[in-house]
Amino acid sequence: MTKKVLMTLLEDKKFKSIHEVLSVYNPVDLAEVLSQLDAQDLALVYRMIEKEKAAEVFAYMDNDQRQELLDTFTTEEVTYILDSMSADDAVDFLEDMPANVVTHLLEQVDGETRAAINQLLKYPEDSAGSIMTVEFIELKAGMTVRQALDKIRTVGIDSETVYTCYVVDRHKLTGIVTAKDLMLSADDTKIADIMTDKFLSVRTTDDQEFVANQFRKYGLIAIPVLDSEGCIVGIVTFDDAIDVLTEETTEDMHRMAALTGENEESYLKTSVFQHAKSRIIWLMILMFSATITGSIITRYENAFAAVPLLVSFIPMLMDTGGNCGSQSSTLVIRGLAVGELQFSDTLKVIWKEFRVAALVSVALAVANGVRIYLMYHSARMAVVIAASLVLTVVVAKLVGCLLPIAAKKCRLDPAIMASPLITTIVDTCSIVIYFRIATVVFAI
Amino acid sequence: MTKKVLMTLLEDKKFKSIHEVLSVYNPVDLAEVLSQLDAQDLALVYRMIEKEKAAEVFAYMDNDQRQELLDTFTTEEVTYILDSMSADDAVDFLEDMPANVVTHLLEQVDGETRAAINQLLKYPEDSAGSIMTVEFIELKAGMTVRQALDKIRTVGIDSETVYTCYVVDRHKLTGIVTAKDLMLSADDTKIADIMTDKFLSVRTTDDQEFVANQFRKYGLIAIPVLDSEGCIVGIVTFDDAIDVLTEETTEDMHRMAALTGENEESYLKTSVFQHAKSRIIWLMILMFSATITGSIITRYENAFAAVPLLVSFIPMLMDTGGNCGSQSSTLVIRGLAVGELQFSDTLKVIWKEFRVAALVSVALAVANGVRIYLMYHSARMAVVIAASLVLTVVVAKLVGCLLPIAAKKCRLDPAIMASPLITTIVDTCSIVIYFRIATVVFAI
Repeated sequence: MTKKVLMTLLEDKKFKSIHEVLSVYNPVDLAEVLSQLDAQDLALVYRMIEKEKAAEVFAYMDNDQRQELLDTFTTEEVTYILDSMSADDAVDFLEDMPANVVTHLLEQVDGETRAAINQLLKYPEDSAGSIMTVEFIELKAGMTVRQALDKIRTVGIDSETVYTCYVVDRHKLTGIVTAKDLMLSADDTKIADIMTDKFLSVRTTDDQEFVANQFRKYGLIAIPVLDSEGCIVGIVTFDDAIDVLTEETTEDMHRMAALTGENEESYLKTSVFQHAKSRIIWLMILMFSATITGSIITRYENAFAAVPLLVSFIPMLMDTGGNCGSQSSTLVIRGLAVGELQFSDTLKVIWKEFRVAALVSVALAVANGVRIYLMYHSARMAVVIAASLVLTVVVAKLVGCLLPIAAKKCRLDPAIMASPLITTIVDTCSIVIYFRIATVVFAI
Repeated sequence: MTKKVLMTLLEDKKFKSIHEVLSVYNPVDLAEVLSQLDAQDLALVYRMIEKEKAAEVFAYMDNDQRQELLDTFTTEEVTYILDSMSADDAVDFLEDMPANVVTHLLEQVDGETRAAINQLLKYPEDSAGSIMTVEFIELKAGMTVRQALDKIRTVGIDSETVYTCYVVDRHKLTGIVTAKDLMLSADDTKIADIMTDKFLSVRTTDDQEFVANQFRKYGLIAIPVLDSEGCIVGIVTFDDAIDVLTEETTEDMHRMAALTGENEESYLKTSVFQHAKSRIIWLMILMFSATITGSIITRYENAFAAVPLLVSFIPMLMDTGGNCGSQSSTLVIRGLAVGELQFSDTLKVIWKEFRVAALVSVALAVANGVRIYLMYHSARMAVVIAASLVLTVVVAKLVGCLLPIAAKKCRLDPAIMASPLITTIVDTCSIVIYFRIATVVFAI
């Protein structure tokens, strides 16, 4: 459904058709359609969505639009929406609202919702506690399957949270039961007989990236979240894990491209000023760092005054060094992120990069050496470039693989040790190597 | 469990303890432990894992080790393993084996398994058909809940595939029923009454990245895969979607760092020669492209002979241009990958990047202009650098945002239009801009 159809129907006041058209769409797609409307139309159309679905659509909209809608809502509407959202979605939404709005909203929801939301709001951002949902099925080992099913029916929560049920003894998690076990067992089977005590769990304080990686590694559908006493306080489901993986990957990619600021809004929703802010810091730092390379060049003024051709190979050396470094750092950063590489692999990585660098650099040096000899008929220049290339590539590969590992060891995000920073560091090295070799070979 | 403990137990022939220790671990972790053993110990320890679990562990091992184990297997063992693996795991495994081994293995499994595997092997790599599993629960609308549960019990397949059941009429998919609906409905309820006909689906030929993005967007647990006639032929489950997302992201990151070759092995498992091969192609291309920049510099020999200081700002200009370009290209590439940006947003992106470039470039130009004036007391040099920076940043941002969008439009992977290529292109522009401005200002 394009915006156009919707707008035409709206102009013609064909409200019944709009209602029917809207009922065909699923909540995710509806939120996308609504995102194209201005505040006034949005408020109008939103009210034509059936009530239950409207709450779900609200969860998928972006913050600007939610704020716009919120301004037009009655108290009853706000209460209904917040009560219908799952607690973790409500928290995501509230975290981006001004504090006074949050207080005001929380006053309007029922006690149980408020308690759940408040509990989640107190966990540090990006922790397992902040992404978990507090809605899960709690069973006792002594229950029968029939009692368990009755309990699920009464609680009546989202279907993605019932695929695994949690067997609890005085708040301590003692086992898990899958929906499959419940479906296929006789009604009078005891939960104790079908539960398994082999399960994975995470702590409320665990980093969300660690949690998401457990899903990646073990193919889980949900994982229980325990507090410091081993009591179950919530669960993280696979769909939240997918969101975290996407978010963390985007963050890594941004860091690897010298962007700061954890911006959860989409590219188009981010203001020009915000974009500029997230880019300027590293650009400044790297720009001033690059002047070090410049001042080294100045020291070799005599060299390129004597052999002006020397200057023309600077871009090629700098770029090749930067590219080699960023290849290595990207491989290592990604390897660390998905858990394929550990600190204990450092020596293996160095040895591998060294051999790769040897192979690659010789190939590059030969190709370029031959080209230069043929073009400029200068064996000396060919030797200078070939030798500089070999050394630059080796240094670049080693710097590129070592810095991310070192960052990880220092509990920094390895992703900041990516292309831009590596390039700047390798530039300096390659210029020093180049002019050192040149001054010797040309005896300047 | 460290390798050490295992090796000690093995030396002391404490097989019973090993068996007990192994039974504590889950298959994923066991595969990790086994990966540290050599071929002989591996064959020995693997046989101490209980039979059913052993098949699962096999699915999580890497290809080298599977090949090692395979060599020691009896025909019965091979048959058992292949029959126990889900068809899509078996296909993943077979795709990496030599053709004669595949033929030999397929002769040994039962007819049903062979048919399932053969069906999957015929879909193009990276298509929905190649990642789907053919094991799913097929129901009829006329069945009762009790009959449905009986069917699930008889089929007895992996639990991640029973959370959604598929209602089929002459192979056409007519509706879906969730495990929750089955659990909570009375035994004599008709499936037709609890099924929903609103469901998402994909085609066998759809790209795996598209399929995975459906999971990301809609938070699905599984999605049915239909053939060209609308008949259901398999399903993709969330755990496979997470694997695809990880694989596609890694591929994007590698492409963005000028690495070629779709290597599914981990960093450490990839041979030095393979590593070198995947790096050399782009390094060669980019190295020779960078010589264009070099030859442009040669043309301005007079300029830096007259003002040698000019050379020392080359690295700073090149790096800043490269960094600006890679910031923009990364934002756009990621935006396109997660579906946040479309081709239709091109004008909005250009306008946004232009304004960001204006803000950022002025800040950089002022900072550097002032520094140069204070350090070298040359107003002319300050003006040349400031003006070059502004133009370079604007060009870099525009090239950086446009090339990935253009690649997408030409059905190329936008990820190749990343930092390395953008840097090389922007280098040339920045050098031309710089020397043009310098020759005018210094009247060389």
